[in-house]
Amino acid sequence: MNDYIFKQVALIGFGLIGSSLARALRDHSLCERIICGDLSPETCETVMAMNLADAATTDLRQAVENSDCVILAVPVGASAAVAQAIGPHLMPGCILSDVGSVKQAVIDAITPHISPNVHFIPGHPIAGTEHSGPESGFAALFHGRWCILTPPEGADPAAIAKIKSLWERCGSNVEIMDARRHDRVLAITSHLPHLIAYTIVGTADDLERHMKEDVIKFSAGGFRDFTRIAASNPVMWRDVFLHNRDAVLEIVQRFTEDLTGLQRAIRWEDGDALQTMFTRTRAIRRQIIDAKQAQ
Amino acid sequence: MNDYIFKQVALIGFGLIGSSLARALRDHSLCERIICGDLSPETCETVMAMNLADAATTDLRQAVENSDCVILAVPVGASAAVAQAIGPHLMPGCILSDVGSVKQAVIDAITPHISPNVHFIPGHPIAGTEHSGPESGFAALFHGRWCILTPPEGADPAAIAKIKSLWERCGSNVEIMDARRHDRVLAITSHLPHLIAYTIVGTADDLERHMKEDVIKFSAGGFRDFTRIAASNPVMWRDVFLHNRDAVLEIVQRFTEDLTGLQRAIRWEDGDALQTMFTRTRAIRRQIIDAKQAQ
Repeated sequence: MNDYIFKQVALIGFGLIGSSLARALRDHSLCERIICGDLSPETCETVMAMNLADAATTDLRQAVENSDCVILAVPVGASAAVAQAIGPHLMPGCILSDVGSVKQAVIDAITPHISPNVHFIPGHPIAGTEHSGPESGFAALFHGRWCILTPPEGADPAAIAKIKSLWERCGSNVEIMDARRHDRVLAITSHLPHLIAYTIVGTADDLERHMKEDVIKFSAGGFRDFTRIAASNPVMWRDVFLHNRDAVLEIVQRFTEDLTGLQRAIRWEDGDALQTMFTRTRAIRRQIIDAKQAQ
Repeated sequence: MNDYIFKQVALIGFGLIGSSLARALRDHSLCERIICGDLSPETCETVMAMNLADAATTDLRQAVENSDCVILAVPVGASAAVAQAIGPHLMPGCILSDVGSVKQAVIDAITPHISPNVHFIPGHPIAGTEHSGPESGFAALFHGRWCILTPPEGADPAAIAKIKSLWERCGSNVEIMDARRHDRVLAITSHLPHLIAYTIVGTADDLERHMKEDVIKFSAGGFRDFTRIAASNPVMWRDVFLHNRDAVLEIVQRFTEDLTGLQRAIRWEDGDALQTMFTRTRAIRRQIIDAKQAQ
């Protein structure tokens, strides 16, 4: 007697997230079989050598053919091409989901390529590390983290329930949300922090050599935390910024205005303005601790 | 038989750093007696109740009178006033040091108030947490961290050696450096990251209420790391920015130019520029790991 949610799950893309999900699906017995679909022959070889899936193929159509659940774990910019390739081969009644950090653009990219008898339930597990590739995955990645689902209006409640159950049994807390709201919230909590981290590390990288050596040596004062974020997958993040462009540009604009204000306060030695601002930001940390999102 | 470096150390200012240093001095038997000098009667009471020093007084002159070592652990903006108050009361041959995050401005503020027979060896332990106050200190804070000393030209080698030994026996690695170079390096590794973190958390704090609730709830995607940094002591950081003004403004300017470049690449959908930049920043993380400053 088993408690499988799906018979066969095809994971398309076997990087950090795809391979972590494969491990979690196995650990928690969420499906009978796992198929790896990945365009890289090296990745397919690694997946089989590490026994992360029951089968691995570079032929995405073959990967999805007999799968009652297909989850895309590719950079969001690849969503349209992948959907176009697999769309005609998805089983009727199949549940299609994804793990992309942007939701509205992914919905727009995928929807035209799938038939109405496929249930598309977009998802985004808010989890990750600065490492990439199938070797870097681990089953506990999603444990205690949020997973946001953004089902389109009229989506099948049974399909939503199955994807919700999949993530909950991986240890995640599931929230259902409108795709555009997701994109605006993540622009602030994730996309802007990554853009800022990439920028500050790039600024440091442009310094003359001696200065850069000191920066690396004495990185513990705050800079080091930014380098971890700025070591994240370059292709994934390129796609995030290109596909959540408007929300990111809007929040970057607000951020720049606020930074200019602080810069001006420093230049004109307005200590009161600085102290007031720095006192205000302390309160947000307390709210995050109260929300049990930090200690 | 003991191995004390000093007979009596006066710590002026008993916040996170001062109280951590007191604990470390005791744990490693680095002096016979510790005197707490702090203008706040509440802090002095806490220090005595927690037995963090042998005596505590709000009279800074009294604190330093028979001390062969005096270490200032106050916001850098208070350096001049403290030096003026204690200067005439320092013992001949006494070693004066500090823990300020800015060095040249502190040297300029303190030097006029001390006699030539006092050895002033400025220092900066690159260590801290987002918590403040005497209760938040702990002896291991300095363990495995850098401490930078910026002795003026012609400083007594024996005095430098004693302060170096003090920090080494607290577990730190000591580096000797020119004060202005320290200030430029720290502007990048510490001051800019804090300014950015304060800004982004402030930007989020200005959002409409519903949005802010979501930002707090889903803060794990990167934002949360910034809130920790932005919860640091407001007065300490106000003073850092005001007293390392030129180096901070110069690096903020570079950062803003770089951010504008990325913003433009997003607006014009220049994916290659984004990917090239994000790939470059990955290398710095590897160098920090190679330098054993991260894992």
